[in-house]
Amino acid sequence: MTSPNATSPILGIDLGGTKVEIACARLNAEVLARKRIPTQAQDGPERGLERILETAQDVLARAEVPAKELCAVGISIPGPWDHDAGAFLDLPNLPGWEGYPIRQKLEEHFSAPIHMDNDANATALAEWKFGAGRGYDHLTYLTMSTGIGGGLILDGRLYRGKNFNAGEVGHQVIMPDGPPCGCGLLGHLEALCSGSGIARRLKEAVKPGSSLMWELAGGDPEKLTAEVLVGAVRKEDPLAQVFFHQTLEYLATGLANLVFILNPEAIVLGTIVARNPDLFLKSLERMVAERVWDVFTADLKILPAQLTDQIGVYAPLAVILDALNLEPEELTK
Amino acid sequence: MTSPNATSPILGIDLGGTKVEIACARLNAEVLARKRIPTQAQDGPERGLERILETAQDVLARAEVPAKELCAVGISIPGPWDHDAGAFLDLPNLPGWEGYPIRQKLEEHFSAPIHMDNDANATALAEWKFGAGRGYDHLTYLTMSTGIGGGLILDGRLYRGKNFNAGEVGHQVIMPDGPPCGCGLLGHLEALCSGSGIARRLKEAVKPGSSLMWELAGGDPEKLTAEVLVGAVRKEDPLAQVFFHQTLEYLATGLANLVFILNPEAIVLGTIVARNPDLFLKSLERMVAERVWDVFTADLKILPAQLTDQIGVYAPLAVILDALNLEPEELTK
Repeated sequence: MTSPNATSPILGIDLGGTKVEIACARLNAEVLARKRIPTQAQDGPERGLERILETAQDVLARAEVPAKELCAVGISIPGPWDHDAGAFLDLPNLPGWEGYPIRQKLEEHFSAPIHMDNDANATALAEWKFGAGRGYDHLTYLTMSTGIGGGLILDGRLYRGKNFNAGEVGHQVIMPDGPPCGCGLLGHLEALCSGSGIARRLKEAVKPGSSLMWELAGGDPEKLTAEVLVGAVRKEDPLAQVFFHQTLEYLATGLANLVFILNPEAIVLGTIVARNPDLFLKSLERMVAERVWDVFTADLKILPAQLTDQIGVYAPLAVILDALNLEPEELTK
Repeated sequence: MTSPNATSPILGIDLGGTKVEIACARLNAEVLARKRIPTQAQDGPERGLERILETAQDVLARAEVPAKELCAVGISIPGPWDHDAGAFLDLPNLPGWEGYPIRQKLEEHFSAPIHMDNDANATALAEWKFGAGRGYDHLTYLTMSTGIGGGLILDGRLYRGKNFNAGEVGHQVIMPDGPPCGCGLLGHLEALCSGSGIARRLKEAVKPGSSLMWELAGGDPEKLTAEVLVGAVRKEDPLAQVFFHQTLEYLATGLANLVFILNPEAIVLGTIVARNPDLFLKSLERMVAERVWDVFTADLKILPAQLTDQIGVYAPLAVILDALNLEPEELTK
């Protein structure tokens, strides 16, 4: 095989709890074909892999790339993993998939090397190589979807830690003896500020007639989501504003802890923050500055993620580029 | 000048809030002469530097090393600093020294290059190169004296962050709206578990007749220290035991946060923990394990620091070795 260059084709698999995005692209990020399917996690990993492989075949056919010409396969998975086995740990959004050796299974189907990482690391790499984090050597990435994940770029490279699971910034304790986190422990940032944490807190706080949020959720407590909260804040609903402010304070406390520990030059925030930068960023900047020393904020930028819609392609691609030790600049024509 | 080798002489300055240790040693850690003087911080930095230089002259004379033969001067300072200016920030234990460009002042007196870092980074480097942390690529060091400092060895090198002040692990929030920290912010780990934090909490908790601690302190609330606490725990004083358990829980929460974020393979704990490993380590191991996921504890060791008495020599030496990119193994005969 020739050494990888800008036009070498790769297959990317972005495996999430609800959907899988499969893409064939070139190393220079040119997308040849892509397809998104539901994960149907409840059917188990064997059936899941079958559907991924069928879709990959379809995507490769449309891209007119024979599988044997792939220079690498990248896969991003939703949470911590067993690096030695290339297997899932017990993930809340992939119930029953624990222990399934996905890397080995992919190796049986592809002659190209398989490169794997969790979604937070993969997205941190992608934002750093292609998005909001370009040019920063010390970058902390946080995503705030169902859970809160993190990826750490330190001294110009992804820091993975001893067991390849560093960056679990959502599991720092913000409120001792606070509400249970998805992981079972108490008072984590994720239990307060993730999509599911916000929804749980809203369910307790919002009663019929107390807030516009009740109407926006159609009177269904199950529909009180972070998006409903943001919608009501935009309409200046008082309860939503108080609740949102409290949520920002939790988040700022978590970010301040990270600033003291990691002294980053950029914090990149994904998902709901990236979609609503006007609501989040100014307040967060102020609240973080109130919680750390001046030396830490002199060079600190808090930025919205840029690749939101394209992340399904960029995340696995960035994992591959990192494994091959290639920079995007070397690959653009 | 010839390139540095095992016998090249260095001057080390370990500047603390109460004392300064000045040593002439070889790069292979052989100590030629050393002397300890009180800092007398209240006299200001100009007078402090004068006394340091006088003592250095004396130490070099006893070591029979002319200043012009030094291959480097290393200085460790007690807290965050301005890296570009080589100057002190506003440090609680060096009041009035803020802004003093100590690196430049030393450069005016020595022809050898000056290498500088804060004490927590310097001690982390020393424990990693010479002490409890040898052989670990992912190591978190914590000291718990007047304050709580930290130094992070990540991927086999010291991580300093954007402004050279990463590792301020004592300033993570453990108790929101908790007691004020020495830095002025609220509820930090340092405000609860440092020597001064423990003393402040003891002053509130211990009343005449309530505990052996009152007797051990001679009835003087100002003498209720962490050492008094440890002494009373060893004598199974009930209040001391409850108080100590609570202190360990705060500390374990802080360590668990660090484990989630950094996924280290070793945590090295200095000062009071290093002097009382039997009281601290087993309980901390259990409490940390209860607060993180199994994947993080599989390879994790919590260890007492080893260089306690020798740190005044090893800390500045380690800063120099790090700057010269030399390993101790390359230098021992």
